[in-house]
Amino acid sequence: MSSLDLLLGRPLASAEARADRIGIAAGIPIFGLDALSSAAYGPEAALTLLIPLGTLGARYSMLINAAISLLLLIVYFSYRQTIEAYPSGGGSYTVARQNLGTTAGLVAAAALMIDYILTVAVGISAGVGALVSAVPALQPRTLALCLLILLVVLLVNLRGVRETGTVFMVPTYMFVGCLLIVIAIGLVKTAASGGHPVAVLSPPRIAATTAVVSWWILLQAFASGCTAMTGVEAVSNGVKAFKETRHAQHTLTVIIGLLITLLLGIAYLVRAYNISATDPGRPGYDSVLSMLTSAVTGKGVFYYVAIASILAVLSLSANTAFADFPRLCRIIASDGYLPKAFAVTGRRLVFSHGIYVLAVLAGILLIAFRGVTDRLIPLYAVGAFLAFTFSQAGMVVHWYRTGGAGARRSMLVNGVGAVATGITVSVVLVAKFVQGAWMTMLLIPMLFLAMLSVNRYYRRVKQQIHCASPIELQGLRPPKVVIPVQSWSQISKDAVQFALTISRDVHAVHVAACEDDPAITPQEWEEFAAEPARRAGFPVPDLITIPSPYRFIILPIVHYVLQLERSHPDRLIAVLIPEMVERKWYEYLLHNQRGELLRLLLFAKGNRRVVTVTVPWYLDL
Amino acid sequence: MSSLDLLLGRPLASAEARADRIGIAAGIPIFGLDALSSAAYGPEAALTLLIPLGTLGARYSMLINAAISLLLLIVYFSYRQTIEAYPSGGGSYTVARQNLGTTAGLVAAAALMIDYILTVAVGISAGVGALVSAVPALQPRTLALCLLILLVVLLVNLRGVRETGTVFMVPTYMFVGCLLIVIAIGLVKTAASGGHPVAVLSPPRIAATTAVVSWWILLQAFASGCTAMTGVEAVSNGVKAFKETRHAQHTLTVIIGLLITLLLGIAYLVRAYNISATDPGRPGYDSVLSMLTSAVTGKGVFYYVAIASILAVLSLSANTAFADFPRLCRIIASDGYLPKAFAVTGRRLVFSHGIYVLAVLAGILLIAFRGVTDRLIPLYAVGAFLAFTFSQAGMVVHWYRTGGAGARRSMLVNGVGAVATGITVSVVLVAKFVQGAWMTMLLIPMLFLAMLSVNRYYRRVKQQIHCASPIELQGLRPPKVVIPVQSWSQISKDAVQFALTISRDVHAVHVAACEDDPAITPQEWEEFAAEPARRAGFPVPDLITIPSPYRFIILPIVHYVLQLERSHPDRLIAVLIPEMVERKWYEYLLHNQRGELLRLLLFAKGNRRVVTVTVPWYLDL
Repeated sequence: MSSLDLLLGRPLASAEARADRIGIAAGIPIFGLDALSSAAYGPEAALTLLIPLGTLGARYSMLINAAISLLLLIVYFSYRQTIEAYPSGGGSYTVARQNLGTTAGLVAAAALMIDYILTVAVGISAGVGALVSAVPALQPRTLALCLLILLVVLLVNLRGVRETGTVFMVPTYMFVGCLLIVIAIGLVKTAASGGHPVAVLSPPRIAATTAVVSWWILLQAFASGCTAMTGVEAVSNGVKAFKETRHAQHTLTVIIGLLITLLLGIAYLVRAYNISATDPGRPGYDSVLSMLTSAVTGKGVFYYVAIASILAVLSLSANTAFADFPRLCRIIASDGYLPKAFAVTGRRLVFSHGIYVLAVLAGILLIAFRGVTDRLIPLYAVGAFLAFTFSQAGMVVHWYRTGGAGARRSMLVNGVGAVATGITVSVVLVAKFVQGAWMTMLLIPMLFLAMLSVNRYYRRVKQQIHCASPIELQGLRPPKVVIPVQSWSQISKDAVQFALTISRDVHAVHVAACEDDPAITPQEWEEFAAEPARRAGFPVPDLITIPSPYRFIILPIVHYVLQLERSHPDRLIAVLIPEMVERKWYEYLLHNQRGELLRLLLFAKGNRRVVTVTVPWYLDL
Repeated sequence: MSSLDLLLGRPLASAEARADRIGIAAGIPIFGLDALSSAAYGPEAALTLLIPLGTLGARYSMLINAAISLLLLIVYFSYRQTIEAYPSGGGSYTVARQNLGTTAGLVAAAALMIDYILTVAVGISAGVGALVSAVPALQPRTLALCLLILLVVLLVNLRGVRETGTVFMVPTYMFVGCLLIVIAIGLVKTAASGGHPVAVLSPPRIAATTAVVSWWILLQAFASGCTAMTGVEAVSNGVKAFKETRHAQHTLTVIIGLLITLLLGIAYLVRAYNISATDPGRPGYDSVLSMLTSAVTGKGVFYYVAIASILAVLSLSANTAFADFPRLCRIIASDGYLPKAFAVTGRRLVFSHGIYVLAVLAGILLIAFRGVTDRLIPLYAVGAFLAFTFSQAGMVVHWYRTGGAGARRSMLVNGVGAVATGITVSVVLVAKFVQGAWMTMLLIPMLFLAMLSVNRYYRRVKQQIHCASPIELQGLRPPKVVIPVQSWSQISKDAVQFALTISRDVHAVHVAACEDDPAITPQEWEEFAAEPARRAGFPVPDLITIPSPYRFIILPIVHYVLQLERSHPDRLIAVLIPEMVERKWYEYLLHNQRGELLRLLLFAKGNRRVVTVTVPWYLDL
């Protein structure tokens, strides 16, 4: 068992793909982590913007969470229909492309891709941020912790879909379980006390009101809360990862149901317990969920278990992006708009290149922001809602085209979804434009244009190499062979022998550069190569000596080859490069790499009639 | 004119080597910068250790500088003789190796190489340190400034020996001139005032005596002052860079003469003006030369010119190492104890690889110590004195062997030198062992062992490729040709045509890996390749399809080739790899690099009977 097998698991055969598919229990952690973890930061993000409203904040928070839950419900019904209509994977890209045209599809894809990259960076850094605020001693290690988590998520995903589900099941279900318990106890206590429960540990007093309620503050809070909705798209892209289509639908139902329960439960209890957000930049900061849990249950063992599960789920929420981003890239690559490598199935039946690219880009973001990515938050949500809107609009066209019995009703559902998410994207854009949403609006068209040029490139290559004609053998002659020779050795002997077997037209080239190394002489050539060839009845190979006053070794050979090629327009030139093969990496340093350099230069300066032949010589030390 | 030409100058022909040699005026800055710059830190290093002695410090400083000057004089006479005896370059390595054996030579070389690397790092960081203490605003840029200077010295040296001399002439002569003027004025004032000159600006009062004079303190101060002697060896290694041997000797004479004048002059005036060193770590620190200059001339324009020249010379003192290290490596590489690359003469007739290696190693030291290399100072001087000792001892043996008229006298001179430097190396080692000299004593044998194994490796390679026999053509048959084919295209068509010109034994291999790409079918092969070959009277190439359940593409081909090679022990196998050549770097990302990977894997797993042929296909977009 190789170390690679140990790290990533044994390779999976293509035929095992079916067995590697998942059910609902594994689907929830894989495709739902991102959405569910939003419960930990969405309400908080909205509440933070409501701090200036003082005690009124908690009341409006309920309103905002209700609006977001309604939006979630609309999106849910839309995507349920989409999954049914596109059982082979119906992400925004596919739906928009098939119904609204390639441009719409690619724009939706670009928006979603950027969103996923941001999600990974922001998710991991949020988790580590929470951990660091719990254990301040870890502060200086923030970036290292972020990169460590990124590495873990990367490795787990490279092991394949099924294993990912298994690994992430425990933290996901623990997180959901803990929050549900908190909400249940809180509701019981609230009901028992007639709506005014006494906190086990009182939350800090709410700061004085410093602003009046305005549409702008509410919009800002709504836009921030909407970050809770990223990741909802994931299931519809991943339908093929499930054993059956309805498993995907059920998974989506459970995820959305849980998320709405959590959002509304938290919002209600925040109001009942009179909890307001605290400023994350100031000392004494405590997260809303932490305050809520300690108000409901006190700071016992349960509190710490709950907080630990929140930390775990936040930092692992990046996983949804890892599940969906490579699938999305794969579909686009199959259509020829991204490099082909994205469509290659890796050893564990995952699209490894997409996973690597996502990890590298997110890693760059994390390093650039030293693990604190707060400033990136306004950049996302735009992408997700843009993709939602395109997808819903596409579905409307889809139903219009298919027609039939339920088409009208379906059209209505998706139409409502399109309008709702369309309005939301405008709201988020307006509310967050200055803070960074403008950057997303620049990146999306850039990525879109890049995908277009990738496609143009592939189409032109395809045209050029297209061939429907058989080989032509008339007038074909063996190539002229050129062999660079420094001194007479076993290596050059092997090369000359090989050359004479493939052609009767062999030229050795020696560059005389006044170096210390021994050089071949015409007498040696006559004795070791020319004379034996003559005697055996072979055509005699000649030795050409090129002086090199500037001590260049490779360029004179390249020039000689190109000259030969020009003066024999009907012949192929095979340059035979004897190369020493080092068995150990450090041996590489002890030899010059002239052979390899010559090969690369011939590639760069040569043309279709210059072929390079590498004759390896293995050192046996 | 290419940008490379602009940066480094046009390439120089080997025939121009003679014209690129230097005279005395250029020799002094090139080979003397290191030694001369010692005047700026040697006396200070000794005085700093004498601070506890209070007013007595200046008196003993005179004694120590006198001892060092005597040592310099001894070493000077020894090296003068060495240059005469070894006009083609007689560094410690050459002299020790020829007279004391290879081990002694390599140990001396290792000691000297380590010393040079340290010199570059310490010299640059000392210069920048002085600059930063003059302009504290530059403090946060310390490392960047160090690396900038390293880059400048690197580029200047890559331009060639002559240019280096021209560039460094101005600061060197300005430095020497300024110090000589200070010393002259100081001496006149001292004489005029009967030995008790009045300082224009009084140096700070000397701190109270806190220690009594002890041998240990004096030894420490002497060992520190000895760092002034590194760099003296440089001229003897560089004899060949001079127009004539006597130019080298004269250069050495001038360098040593100037250095002794400066050392003694400074020591005398320090005593006359009652100057003591200040603690470099404390506020109010002022360098000895700065205090001396302001005491003698006040803080006018001259003061600032002098200080600027000191800064420049300190930071450029690294240049001597750049002049000598590559030459030393070159000589060792020619003997086969270092990688051959060190012996290659670059485009500007310098040994570029040695220059690069020195710059990289010094750069690593600078980065590791963030530009403050004080802790490295005790590590060096040991190396230089060890090399001196070996060199002198070697010369004693040399004279003993040659015999003749002046041999006895010469033997005496070098013998005195060997004993004096031998004693010094012990003193330095004892005095500085704990502070870091122990590390040098570990590094030297490590480098020595590395050079031995490089040599062993080269000797074994030489044995293996040695060949004094002619080519053997009996029973030679054309290779079996293997062509990997994915789908029928212009690329595969070209490849098959080429294969049929070099062999009558062609096999196409197709790996069926259930990927999206179109795959060749047996029918297509029959139509496009087999049938036309049959018709043209060529042997028919066959198509072998290998199933790949794990989607590996390259490994199945490698296994097929190796199997073919095993089952035909008398045949060569030529694997023909059609490769698309991208004209632009980003196109590289858009294709899989399977061709190149296959080639590398065949190299790694193959053997002498597996040859790879790259048939390039140029995209024409």
